[in-house]
Amino acid sequence: MAISRREFSRLGALGIAAHTISPVSLLGQTNQKKIGYCVIGLGRIADHHMRGIAQGSSSAVAGLVSGHRDKAERIAAQYNVPTSSIYSYEDMDRIRDNKAIDAVIVCLPNSMHAEYTIRSAKAGKHVLCEKPMSVSVPEAEQMIAACNEASVKLMIAYRLHYEPINLKAIKLIRDGALGKVEAISSVNGFNIARGEWRSTHALGGGGPLMDVGIYSLNAARYLTGEEPDQFTAVASTPDRDGRFDGVEENLTWTMRFPSGALASCATTYGASMPGMYKVFGSKGTLEVGSFNYQGLHLKATYKEKPDAPAINIDETNRELDPMQFVRQIDHFSGCIAENKTPNTPGEEGLRDMQYIRSIYRAAGINFS
Amino acid sequence: MAISRREFSRLGALGIAAHTISPVSLLGQTNQKKIGYCVIGLGRIADHHMRGIAQGSSSAVAGLVSGHRDKAERIAAQYNVPTSSIYSYEDMDRIRDNKAIDAVIVCLPNSMHAEYTIRSAKAGKHVLCEKPMSVSVPEAEQMIAACNEASVKLMIAYRLHYEPINLKAIKLIRDGALGKVEAISSVNGFNIARGEWRSTHALGGGGPLMDVGIYSLNAARYLTGEEPDQFTAVASTPDRDGRFDGVEENLTWTMRFPSGALASCATTYGASMPGMYKVFGSKGTLEVGSFNYQGLHLKATYKEKPDAPAINIDETNRELDPMQFVRQIDHFSGCIAENKTPNTPGEEGLRDMQYIRSIYRAAGINFS
Repeated sequence: MAISRREFSRLGALGIAAHTISPVSLLGQTNQKKIGYCVIGLGRIADHHMRGIAQGSSSAVAGLVSGHRDKAERIAAQYNVPTSSIYSYEDMDRIRDNKAIDAVIVCLPNSMHAEYTIRSAKAGKHVLCEKPMSVSVPEAEQMIAACNEASVKLMIAYRLHYEPINLKAIKLIRDGALGKVEAISSVNGFNIARGEWRSTHALGGGGPLMDVGIYSLNAARYLTGEEPDQFTAVASTPDRDGRFDGVEENLTWTMRFPSGALASCATTYGASMPGMYKVFGSKGTLEVGSFNYQGLHLKATYKEKPDAPAINIDETNRELDPMQFVRQIDHFSGCIAENKTPNTPGEEGLRDMQYIRSIYRAAGINFS
Repeated sequence: MAISRREFSRLGALGIAAHTISPVSLLGQTNQKKIGYCVIGLGRIADHHMRGIAQGSSSAVAGLVSGHRDKAERIAAQYNVPTSSIYSYEDMDRIRDNKAIDAVIVCLPNSMHAEYTIRSAKAGKHVLCEKPMSVSVPEAEQMIAACNEASVKLMIAYRLHYEPINLKAIKLIRDGALGKVEAISSVNGFNIARGEWRSTHALGGGGPLMDVGIYSLNAARYLTGEEPDQFTAVASTPDRDGRFDGVEENLTWTMRFPSGALASCATTYGASMPGMYKVFGSKGTLEVGSFNYQGLHLKATYKEKPDAPAINIDETNRELDPMQFVRQIDHFSGCIAENKTPNTPGEEGLRDMQYIRSIYRAAGINFS
């Protein structure tokens, strides 16, 4: 079962179990067949997905697509994948004939998401695709159309929609604990190593906005529950050491929401910038260390209750393998098993792509 | 003497004494005549200035200008000001004939700064004027011209330029401890009470940007040591309870600096938004609770020294009357006694007024 009894009790005590653990995500408790996933691309994010699959019980690693046969064989052995279910990028369309594979997880560089999502859909497989969904709005639209045409599900891997601390933040706001949301401030960035595919336009499709700024963008939307209608942005690429090939190094932007709430966001590939957001409401303030795989924390303080202790939730000491990947894969497997639409479908990814286009254009950067 | 021996030793241990305690600010140690100040406007900020004067030994309260004679008499008794040195707004020009008054402190609502600065200059008195300097760029220029013409000094009360934790932040950056500054994120705002002059355009000249956002603006400049050359902004006034008379409730903006450093700032009158900034550099990160009268704190962490403990400076337990007002008044009195230009002259205030104009215009708000 995906969530240990102890974990379940702890979440229950926080009052968020009902919100986060839907019947769908408890699929693993039944005797239903596990959903088999073919993992396309075997980089770091693939490791997180495969460990999430192994930790839960709704899903199984059922195939691998890689350009490195030896690496794929090592991982196949680890996850009990038959070597006959290892594919190259050239022959991966053969997954169509592999009955053990129900779905794929697209873990490739951004610029390859569209091609492999569309090929997987044409092979009749459901698709869990990493964020950002694509490197252009038309691509995202084509991905949705391809999955619709093939009658397969498309989910974008917005793992924080399945993560308890972010869900707790959303619940506090929806319950009115902060009053009216006036402003959100969020940052997320890191100091990129030389030679990462993310720092090239060809593979990343853009810079830190695509890769990590998207967390602040998406968070401002799930925190307000609104869609932004106005954007301003400024970008810079001082590039003092030749790391950046056609992408921005720094980007900071603002978003206006219909209620009048304003978001102020920043991202960078040039400095450590631990992911977090603050929500400033008429009745209280929320500060969340929000975007990492582990070490998340939430602190809420209230104007009207100055004597009440702040709500503090700290996940720093959680086990190394974060539950958010388990919850995410359980959700998608449940949607596949029960024929439901995922909480973060392709349309959610498309919206972010449209907003990313607005932000880049506001900063004077071409984006289609 | 303005700084106690214990305080001085502690600052020395932090390695910032040399930076913050110039010979000018030690004026109080000598037997020089105290500089006499006439305080114009007796609101909350005037209290801070007068307590700063009383705590130091370079300066004295030598006159008061108020529309409330009884309040003025009570305060006069407290600070040993002769009742003959109490003035109304109508007759305050008579300070010209009061030899005990060397300078004034303009503590009035923003829209009155220009008039009382110019009248004081014409009366031959030096001027310490609260921020924001004025409610328009032309007014700020007129204030500088009037003080130049009268050969009196003009200083804008940017108290944080005289405050040790902010000075320590500047020094860390100048010394290269953070590497290249890539991004700054800063917020400052509060939930305004109904009926405050600040929430009216007539007296405030603008909303939270003028009153508290200016701290983030000014901080981004003193932290980078650069002048911003590009602005974007968005404002909103949901005004759910009729508190706002022609001023913005929320404003968030970005600034680009010539080095490529970007600043992302937010301010509000609609929510508690404790003043702070984060500086993200290529080699380290700085987080400073930066703008309050007390309770300031600084935390620095370094990429290259993950094992080294973060620098933590916390002023939370400082005595109630903050030293920053003492340091500020000592500085101006020293400048008057030694005929030096203040660190924060009228020109510093004028620059912020020009940037405020740029920010308001970027947000689609008229500002001259």
